[in-house]
Amino acid sequence: MFWKSTKKSSEMVGLPPGTLVHIGEERDAKVRITIFDYDEKTFEEKEVKTIEEAFPYRDKPTVTWINIDGIHNLDLMRKVGEHFNLHSLILEDIVNTFQRPKIEDFQDHIFIVLKMLYQDGENSEIKEEQVSIIFGSNFVISFQEAEGDIFNSIRERIRTSKGKIRKMKSDYLAYSLIDAIADGYFLILEKLGEKTESLEDEVMLEPTTKTAQKIHNLKREMISLRKSIWPLREIISNMQRGESKLIYKSTMIYLRDVYDHTIQVIDSVETFRDMLSGMLDIYLSSISNRMNEVMKVLTIIATIFIPLTFIAGVYGMNFRFMPELQWKLGYPFVWLIMAGVAGLMMLYFRRKKWL
Amino acid sequence: MFWKSTKKSSEMVGLPPGTLVHIGEERDAKVRITIFDYDEKTFEEKEVKTIEEAFPYRDKPTVTWINIDGIHNLDLMRKVGEHFNLHSLILEDIVNTFQRPKIEDFQDHIFIVLKMLYQDGENSEIKEEQVSIIFGSNFVISFQEAEGDIFNSIRERIRTSKGKIRKMKSDYLAYSLIDAIADGYFLILEKLGEKTESLEDEVMLEPTTKTAQKIHNLKREMISLRKSIWPLREIISNMQRGESKLIYKSTMIYLRDVYDHTIQVIDSVETFRDMLSGMLDIYLSSISNRMNEVMKVLTIIATIFIPLTFIAGVYGMNFRFMPELQWKLGYPFVWLIMAGVAGLMMLYFRRKKWL
Amino acid sequence: MFWKSTKKSSEMVGLPPGTLVHIGEERDAKVRITIFDYDEKTFEEKEVKTIEEAFPYRDKPTVTWINIDGIHNLDLMRKVGEHFNLHSLILEDIVNTFQRPKIEDFQDHIFIVLKMLYQDGENSEIKEEQVSIIFGSNFVISFQEAEGDIFNSIRERIRTSKGKIRKMKSDYLAYSLIDAIADGYFLILEKLGEKTESLEDEVMLEPTTKTAQKIHNLKREMISLRKSIWPLREIISNMQRGESKLIYKSTMIYLRDVYDHTIQVIDSVETFRDMLSGMLDIYLSSISNRMNEVMKVLTIIATIFIPLTFIAGVYGMNFRFMPELQWKLGYPFVWLIMAGVAGLMMLYFRRKKWL
Amino acid sequence: MFWKSTKKSSEMVGLPPGTLVHIGEERDAKVRITIFDYDEKTFEEKEVKTIEEAFPYRDKPTVTWINIDGIHNLDLMRKVGEHFNLHSLILEDIVNTFQRPKIEDFQDHIFIVLKMLYQDGENSEIKEEQVSIIFGSNFVISFQEAEGDIFNSIRERIRTSKGKIRKMKSDYLAYSLIDAIADGYFLILEKLGEKTESLEDEVMLEPTTKTAQKIHNLKREMISLRKSIWPLREIISNMQRGESKLIYKSTMIYLRDVYDHTIQVIDSVETFRDMLSGMLDIYLSSISNRMNEVMKVLTIIATIFIPLTFIAGVYGMNFRFMPELQWKLGYPFVWLIMAGVAGLMMLYFRRKKWL
Amino acid sequence: MFWKSTKKSSEMVGLPPGTLVHIGEERDAKVRITIFDYDEKTFEEKEVKTIEEAFPYRDKPTVTWINIDGIHNLDLMRKVGEHFNLHSLILEDIVNTFQRPKIEDFQDHIFIVLKMLYQDGENSEIKEEQVSIIFGSNFVISFQEAEGDIFNSIRERIRTSKGKIRKMKSDYLAYSLIDAIADGYFLILEKLGEKTESLEDEVMLEPTTKTAQKIHNLKREMISLRKSIWPLREIISNMQRGESKLIYKSTMIYLRDVYDHTIQVIDSVETFRDMLSGMLDIYLSSISNRMNEVMKVLTIIATIFIPLTFIAGVYGMNFRFMPELQWKLGYPFVWLIMAGVAGLMMLYFRRKKWL
Repeated sequence: MFWKSTKKSSEMVGLPPGTLVHIGEERDAKVRITIFDYDEKTFEEKEVKTIEEAFPYRDKPTVTWINIDGIHNLDLMRKVGEHFNLHSLILEDIVNTFQRPKIEDFQDHIFIVLKMLYQDGENSEIKEEQVSIIFGSNFVISFQEAEGDIFNSIRERIRTSKGKIRKMKSDYLAYSLIDAIADGYFLILEKLGEKTESLEDEVMLEPTTKTAQKIHNLKREMISLRKSIWPLREIISNMQRGESKLIYKSTMIYLRDVYDHTIQVIDSVETFRDMLSGMLDIYLSSISNRMNEVMKVLTIIATIFIPLTFIAGVYGMNFRFMPELQWKLGYPFVWLIMAGVAGLMMLYFRRKKWL
Repeated sequence: MFWKSTKKSSEMVGLPPGTLVHIGEERDAKVRITIFDYDEKTFEEKEVKTIEEAFPYRDKPTVTWINIDGIHNLDLMRKVGEHFNLHSLILEDIVNTFQRPKIEDFQDHIFIVLKMLYQDGENSEIKEEQVSIIFGSNFVISFQEAEGDIFNSIRERIRTSKGKIRKMKSDYLAYSLIDAIADGYFLILEKLGEKTESLEDEVMLEPTTKTAQKIHNLKREMISLRKSIWPLREIISNMQRGESKLIYKSTMIYLRDVYDHTIQVIDSVETFRDMLSGMLDIYLSSISNRMNEVMKVLTIIATIFIPLTFIAGVYGMNFRFMPELQWKLGYPFVWLIMAGVAGLMMLYFRRKKWL
Repeated sequence: MFWKSTKKSSEMVGLPPGTLVHIGEERDAKVRITIFDYDEKTFEEKEVKTIEEAFPYRDKPTVTWINIDGIHNLDLMRKVGEHFNLHSLILEDIVNTFQRPKIEDFQDHIFIVLKMLYQDGENSEIKEEQVSIIFGSNFVISFQEAEGDIFNSIRERIRTSKGKIRKMKSDYLAYSLIDAIADGYFLILEKLGEKTESLEDEVMLEPTTKTAQKIHNLKREMISLRKSIWPLREIISNMQRGESKLIYKSTMIYLRDVYDHTIQVIDSVETFRDMLSGMLDIYLSSISNRMNEVMKVLTIIATIFIPLTFIAGVYGMNFRFMPELQWKLGYPFVWLIMAGVAGLMMLYFRRKKWL
Repeated sequence: MFWKSTKKSSEMVGLPPGTLVHIGEERDAKVRITIFDYDEKTFEEKEVKTIEEAFPYRDKPTVTWINIDGIHNLDLMRKVGEHFNLHSLILEDIVNTFQRPKIEDFQDHIFIVLKMLYQDGENSEIKEEQVSIIFGSNFVISFQEAEGDIFNSIRERIRTSKGKIRKMKSDYLAYSLIDAIADGYFLILEKLGEKTESLEDEVMLEPTTKTAQKIHNLKREMISLRKSIWPLREIISNMQRGESKLIYKSTMIYLRDVYDHTIQVIDSVETFRDMLSGMLDIYLSSISNRMNEVMKVLTIIATIFIPLTFIAGVYGMNFRFMPELQWKLGYPFVWLIMAGVAGLMMLYFRRKKWL
Repeated sequence: MFWKSTKKSSEMVGLPPGTLVHIGEERDAKVRITIFDYDEKTFEEKEVKTIEEAFPYRDKPTVTWINIDGIHNLDLMRKVGEHFNLHSLILEDIVNTFQRPKIEDFQDHIFIVLKMLYQDGENSEIKEEQVSIIFGSNFVISFQEAEGDIFNSIRERIRTSKGKIRKMKSDYLAYSLIDAIADGYFLILEKLGEKTESLEDEVMLEPTTKTAQKIHNLKREMISLRKSIWPLREIISNMQRGESKLIYKSTMIYLRDVYDHTIQVIDSVETFRDMLSGMLDIYLSSISNRMNEVMKVLTIIATIFIPLTFIAGVYGMNFRFMPELQWKLGYPFVWLIMAGVAGLMMLYFRRKKWL
């Protein structure tokens, strides 16, 4: 489950900082490197076998987007680090998939770590994948844990020159990648929102003993979503502060837009959490109410019949001298008394509004 | 219900920023465009068929208020955008009715998104509608999802030159629109306040099994109201900071006034939420108390009659040699014993204060 | 009750800002206007019929205090507004008795709205009254909803020249009025503190089914007190910032003094609220404990007698061949068995510490 | 109890600010004035009858510490105020023992109010006493409510010239007094910590019906401790800001030290409060568990014997034609059936894990 | 347990500041002093008997790391203090093992107190040990309570010149020590995370009466971890502010790295605490559910048999004239009635969904 993400960082304990260790799910898939190189007029798309093929694009004035699917190839990572002059801690952060989302500004390039959330097809479990982005004045390098189609809409926009993307610089491309990831949060949020609503109906209409656990699980997913989205908010806020020359003013309004979206997700998560807390209260009060009902049935039955049984017991005694037993109308009379007692009890319960 | 507002934003996932997609309730009503053009001395009111008729007013020195009911006509939106030189993200935000309330300052015009709350006639459900306002030095454009009468009092004031509105600039008109929306929050708050009080009476006097759900629903409405009012507070606070040349100093005091009102609403919402939390506690304690009462009745009846029934049972046994059975006064004597036992029990319960 | 104060503000919805509408309790009492005019050496006290009589004092260098009891006379308010050159929003705020406490600095005069809390004689209910204060370089105007004696001690000090008041300027008089109102909060706090303590005793010693409601009501009164005192704190903090020329440095230390007092009230209110929350927990645990006790009694009685009754039932059976029934010592023997069963049960309960 | 401290401040309501009224416990003990006058080389200790004897020391360059035990002598206070040129509000604060801890900087002297906490010998109840400190460039005046030995270790250090105290100025002496009071908080904290731990054992091992009240009381003491320590933190933080010429840089590191200690106390109080909240939850769950156990015993006994009693009842019926009654093995057969029913019940309970 | 750490500080109450008193666990192990002296080219490792042997290294330009295991030798401490010119409060803080983590900048050296967390081998209890670090331009002195192997990986890196450590200055060594301690927090966090998860399974699948206590204990460990990690965050944040000349810019990025790690630990601790709170709610609801189940069984059995027993009781009465008793089919008829009553009851329970 995706809330376990900080657990295995302990693998790195004791190693000198900057040591490259791939921490995360074992993957033996091949690494896939794709290159998009474009400006307003020209456009080139290419899939390369070795990272060295990508290096020449670096010195071209066009925007170059190198996307690397698969970060478990430490050799490859080292080469990228050397060529683009990256600090060893950057590389360490990229390959450690339990890294907390963050942004770091190294003057001539900016390094961003993000968490991508998506749902797995089969049982729609929420999964998390780490995406790292490095962008300089004319290049963007993105690292994914595995192949994915989250950036496909951006690729399509570059190919077809739809929207502004081909007219803008690398900062806009970086923004587009972040925006694509933030959009993923909306999808997750929508999913959790639907679950919350259907759970609310369950709580209101027919709570079962599993309901509390479901509320708990949903709450935990909300906590995780919040844990992923809060750092994203900080990252964008940091970018908006406008301290880097790499981010142009024309991109600012787009950053503000995605910032607004993260705020909206955060607001909604908080609202959902409030609702879930409320639902647990409702659930507990409905358990109490049901217990009350059970108790009332028991009390009514027992309270009516216990005295009657006592009366029957009295006339079941074997004393030799019990005058009532000899009366001709003793038996119907006892029935009358018993009916009277039962009637009084009923009246009492009605007054108490138990019936 | 109006708290669902962030749900469908996912429809935009994957689209390039600035793409116009109408997100919200399907509406096929015709778009209605009304124009108010005024200064202290002149005044003109007009309903136009096409937006092009409104454009000439832009270059007049008078204040022009263009009100557009219906934002689902994307073609119209695009024309407005082009003519008034609006950023594509503004248009996207206007037509996306799940936008979070916000303000953006584009030097020569200011863009504000707001949520209008109102109650629907039939079952007085709370509904939400998005209102967008753009104002420049001599024009205000307001966008509503559908026709509504919330701004009628402002229209009347312009027509009759009541109050200061005709003497002031476009910023005062924008303020008036915001104020009208904030007033709507007061009405909702009043409604929720009444509900809270009547629910409080219910909790105190005759709580039912539905009470907890009612508290929960009211809490949720409070959360939603708060979610709408907080961004409004930020918006007005932003306007008050006085960084825009479009907002004159004479309008500032009015902004401070509406700001105070939002603070008052927020305060009250928090107070109501505290009260609702308290009411749930009272409700739960009253459930416990009632269970206690049921238990006490059961205990008293059972505890008195179970021993008596036992005694009756003893003398119902068929042993051949049971001397008591032969006693002449055996039967009355047993009644005496049983009365004694019952009496002792009663004393015990009285001492325990259960009777 | 005094926590309802924001409710009726909706009466103003739709009116242009600055419209004078008296919102609050209907009062038909006459308006009473008193004037104190003093400096270190001279002193004049006067009750006037019309506000016009008060206007000449404005231009004298002495400090003039105009106290107006009754704000429902809108005509009078308008005259005051014109003569002292007050913004129409000030007048609106004064006559709207559901105004949130606030301070506004208009360069040549400062406007303050406050909530006065006091207890009503009969059933010592807490009541709220709005007091507005306007002070300029040589005048103070105070507005009360109705006649009251809260400022009598200040009047007495002016008459007898006790303390520093006659030596100081109008800002000190304004401070004195605020201080008198803050003192009222101490009295309310003391009252609530006493209620809290007596309620705590009730919770500890003999909680009833009404106790939870009492805790809830007291909590609500605490919330209200806090809602009134917080804005007061902000007001004084604002005055202390020393941005106005109307407030002399010599008055600052007195403002700091009353500021400390508001902090003390806030601290205490928070402490009381913590205590009340704790008391509800105690109450709930005592309900649970009592239920436990009831259950134990039921369990003990039932558990002892149910098996005994069963044994008696067995020997009440009418089988022809039941050898025990023929035994000479059958009856005493059964009593022995029954005593044994009861004894074992008692031992079990003692081991469980239920007896 | 020491949390009542804000209660009686209402005695001052209506009085002009700066009026001297002794508010606090009635004390008729004599006032005791001791003087320490020292520098690195000389040292003089003296107990004086009248405050006038202390005045000459003021103009000597040595550090003079005047300690006054007993603040109910208003005449004495007035004399001190006049001679040392103290503002009337300072005197008012000193004699009002319900003053909130605070610091005020009057350029040539600094005024500090503190709460001293200590435990009373007999039943180790926590008591509070107000200590006020005024220090100028070469004098420190300390005021205590009654004679106490809290400052004895400081006196001893001055006498024996132990530590740095004789080498430092009046600010170090003031620091030493504050430090002595902060040390007292550690002792209280230790005491409350021990109580918390023993209460935790009680909750875990054998909770009684009084446990919840004990938790509540301890919580209240924590709240009070926090209420006293927070202002102390603010006071020291204020002194550290270094705005006063009266506090030398060499003393700063000592202030930082005592500041760290207050933070440590605050941290621990918060931790204890978290633990106490947790303990209440444990207590409530243990009540529920015990109720569960009681219920189970009742259920098991009742559920086994109620059907058996029914069977016995059936064969106690007096129908003329009941073939079973005539059977030779009827009686043993019924015993068999009853044993079977009981056995099945036992199996059922074992499967439910109730046995 | 490690959360008791502030308890014994009271031993120092009354002592002048700067007094050396060893506060902490009694240890009679010998003190062990090791020296590492290195620069990029040279390297020397030595274990010395007396601290005086270490002093000559101070004046060499190489980086000297003096590690002292055992701080109970006050004599040794005093010598170190004199030679390295340390303030007496530093020494006091080093030997008081209940010191709160902190950093202090003395221009030519920086003093840091930290808490090292580790698990004890046997029952994996969490233990705490205080580590103090002093570093100047070319030396680092570290103090541990006892011998430990936490810094071994750093020693190895120095010996083998692995990583950057030999190329960097003393600030990097200090960073490495802090990083090693922060790594220890990750190990503890991982351990607590595993406990949390296994406890969650227990709550969901088979909660026992001990579960609540386990949740409470784990919560307490979380509180303690947080209490240790928060000051660490402040310390690193303080170092990053870049105000000291002792910390070079090249080390900054490493500090930011360890800062990120502390944030990650804090985030996770908060998440775990939220989860634990949720688990307690689940636990309580599962207790309620089980009580409900017990009640239902009792109610079903009692409600079915009590009326039947009553019927049997009626026909066990000894009235002379009871016509039913003489009927030939009376007995089977009664069985029929009883079966009917039982059947109706069952239907009722089925409709209530209790069966």
